[in-house]
Amino acid sequence: MKKIEDYIRTIVDFPHEGIMFRDVTTLFADPRGFRMAIDLMLHPYAGIEIDKVVGLEARGFILGGAIAHQLSVGFVPIRKKGKLPGAVISEAYTLEYGEAIVEIHDDAIQPGEKILVVDDLLATGGTAAAGIKLVERLGGEIVSTSFIIDLPELGGRKKLEAMGMEVNVLCEFDGL
Amino acid sequence: MKKIEDYIRTIVDFPHEGIMFRDVTTLFADPRGFRMAIDLMLHPYAGIEIDKVVGLEARGFILGGAIAHQLSVGFVPIRKKGKLPGAVISEAYTLEYGEAIVEIHDDAIQPGEKILVVDDLLATGGTAAAGIKLVERLGGEIVSTSFIIDLPELGGRKKLEAMGMEVNVLCEFDGL
Repeated sequence: MKKIEDYIRTIVDFPHEGIMFRDVTTLFADPRGFRMAIDLMLHPYAGIEIDKVVGLEARGFILGGAIAHQLSVGFVPIRKKGKLPGAVISEAYTLEYGEAIVEIHDDAIQPGEKILVVDDLLATGGTAAAGIKLVERLGGEIVSTSFIIDLPELGGRKKLEAMGMEVNVLCEFDGL
Repeated sequence: MKKIEDYIRTIVDFPHEGIMFRDVTTLFADPRGFRMAIDLMLHPYAGIEIDKVVGLEARGFILGGAIAHQLSVGFVPIRKKGKLPGAVISEAYTLEYGEAIVEIHDDAIQPGEKILVVDDLLATGGTAAAGIKLVERLGGEIVSTSFIIDLPELGGRKKLEAMGMEVNVLCEFDGL
């Protein structure tokens, strides 16, 4: 039986030379692969109190929407600068290939709400760490973070764990 | 009991002056609102053969992920130019505020597959029409299209129906 990692395609030199891009679209396009990925991401949270799922743009939206619906809780997007229409708070961060700013609506999370943060890939952890800071600045309590893929050599998991986060992943790949 | 449209916030003059932006993030952030929106979008497709859900970047990803998981089928993203890592086909189109190019992986849909296309908002229908063309160029058979909001004055529904599409929406708003 195929495992999660068997559905993931590797694209060499995307978005630039030297990067082995782990492409989850082949996992998402497969009925069994996608069903299994969402269900496996959900398993650690059975019986756990979660008020909202926060998804990181853009592939985290695909996962976060499915997980929030299954948990019957709200979904909150963290987006790149300028995409959200309402009043926002922002965090700047450096990522693998450049610098970026992410934003969240300033009324999207109420103090004390229990939050699950999801994205497809944990690399250096820069995007996830910025997202975590946004949630915590609004008073959200992060219950856990969940990713399909971890790239251990890039240190993202250690970075998030040093921030006190629980990190759940479905599979790991070596190299960049 | 609150209806879908009661959860949707209107932001005046976003992304530019004169636009009444219908903001679904307040619907998505509410546990009952989000659960209800996905379930109501699913109802027309009970017992209907669907092989894949295609979601339009970026809010269509939130909806499409949840709908594909619930139907136990694959999810395929249509993205803005340059975001997909594999080989793509493209469609250019004009939208409310500018011009854009959307892309789909050229191996994401097999000829004869039954496809459901989803997005949050049907305005002029330009983005949806471009997405439909991409699916049809790959040989996909579009079973239906589904949106949360229709803005009837902008003519998107008529445009898609003239292309032979079934169009399902949860609510309508007057004006731009």
